[in-house]
Amino acid sequence: MSESPFVAEATFHVRYAETDAQGIVHHASYIVYFEEGRSEYIRQRGSSYAEFERSGLYLAVTEINARYIKAARYDDRLTVRCWIVKYRSRSLVFEYEIIHTETGEKLLTGSSTHICINREGAIMRIPQAWQLW
Amino acid sequence: MSESPFVAEATFHVRYAETDAQGIVHHASYIVYFEEGRSEYIRQRGSSYAEFERSGLYLAVTEINARYIKAARYDDRLTVRCWIVKYRSRSLVFEYEIIHTETGEKLLTGSSTHICINREGAIMRIPQAWQLW
Amino acid sequence: MSESPFVAEATFHVRYAETDAQGIVHHASYIVYFEEGRSEYIRQRGSSYAEFERSGLYLAVTEINARYIKAARYDDRLTVRCWIVKYRSRSLVFEYEIIHTETGEKLLTGSSTHICINREGAIMRIPQAWQLW
Amino acid sequence: MSESPFVAEATFHVRYAETDAQGIVHHASYIVYFEEGRSEYIRQRGSSYAEFERSGLYLAVTEINARYIKAARYDDRLTVRCWIVKYRSRSLVFEYEIIHTETGEKLLTGSSTHICINREGAIMRIPQAWQLW
Repeated sequence: MSESPFVAEATFHVRYAETDAQGIVHHASYIVYFEEGRSEYIRQRGSSYAEFERSGLYLAVTEINARYIKAARYDDRLTVRCWIVKYRSRSLVFEYEIIHTETGEKLLTGSSTHICINREGAIMRIPQAWQLW
Repeated sequence: MSESPFVAEATFHVRYAETDAQGIVHHASYIVYFEEGRSEYIRQRGSSYAEFERSGLYLAVTEINARYIKAARYDDRLTVRCWIVKYRSRSLVFEYEIIHTETGEKLLTGSSTHICINREGAIMRIPQAWQLW
Repeated sequence: MSESPFVAEATFHVRYAETDAQGIVHHASYIVYFEEGRSEYIRQRGSSYAEFERSGLYLAVTEINARYIKAARYDDRLTVRCWIVKYRSRSLVFEYEIIHTETGEKLLTGSSTHICINREGAIMRIPQAWQLW
Repeated sequence: MSESPFVAEATFHVRYAETDAQGIVHHASYIVYFEEGRSEYIRQRGSSYAEFERSGLYLAVTEINARYIKAARYDDRLTVRCWIVKYRSRSLVFEYEIIHTETGEKLLTGSSTHICINREGAIMRIPQAWQLW
């Protein structure tokens, strides 16, 4: 990718259920925020991951990495920024950045790797219509 | 309450993590959506539940009821409507309705009862500044 | 049911992810504990809900009620007790009690109502082999 | 560590709420299973993370990595194996392996990095009594 990638943003409030007894957002909740970023990415590209699945294909997660920089708390407004850094015919890699919407502070960075599979779990080529990068 | 109560609305997409192997939203996820409705209610009344807790008070849940009418799926846009039906000096009851934002179909109704407690768990009077109804 | 019902018990530790910023188990986590009780009920009756679904049937949740008596905390050992209070040809009602395993204190009571549906969502008769009460 | 590390094991059933619309365990649920492994590690070392927090210290997560090899499904019995691979005065790294208990198949590998902080978020030395490796 010689040019800058398309960056999608999703903004939302931290839910109380996403916090833990440390008083902060539980570290597994951010993995769900990454997913929220991917959903928004696909929507903003004029497409829908729900339709992708209805066509019989799935983007299975094969790897997740997250670096936690600063904690978020209940009711904080967060923005997930999400873009594609690598894509091949059967797989792709998303990168993420989660910031505190008001202060702009970076709270987290991460990435997720996905392969395209069908209902039987066989690895499939991503159809051209779904190459969203 | 002789007059109609204030009704808050929160609208959001169903997240993939909130679905289950039946292909629909898991029934416990809606309890979190109720909470999202309450958070929005308090925000729209010009207040913040986060501040309420910083003042040393908590609204502990003492009862939850939910009736499931129709299932929601990943990426559906849902609207939680939420209002207060009963309040006393130390407790209050919220009612909820969750609808499919586009079709307007009612998916769920429910209620939650809360008592005001302090950090030590003692039942407290809700301060007048926090009587949001 | 003139005789006492069969009571299943499932015992486990509270996970950190199940707590919230109040320092206690989040109220929606108990709804998942109820489900854990049902899974154990079906296992102890010599059956498996996973197999039930493979046969093309589902027990959809139509109602949930929970009364919260006392909070649980991270690492507490809890026991869910679960039994069937009502059953018809197409539906059944489970009741629950969650106790603190060591102290025996009752933390929660509740119930859930389920109807039997097929993959298309049509209401179905529960096959005799699956009438576990 | 010239000798083999202590390895803790926690075994449990997959809960229905932990699955997603792909019919498999949602990828964020495994991050909670890692935590379940850590809790068990600390218990098996004769200690308790709950007590650690009561002493005013926390093990904050600074990094999570997970590689997904094979999917688990509802009701599968899983075993999380967990051990410490690196430790310093203020931080430590856990590694994980999740296997399907009956077949022994490896489903996931991963790691998590933690720093010791106090209630104010300041980085602290891990007290000698808590050096569990």
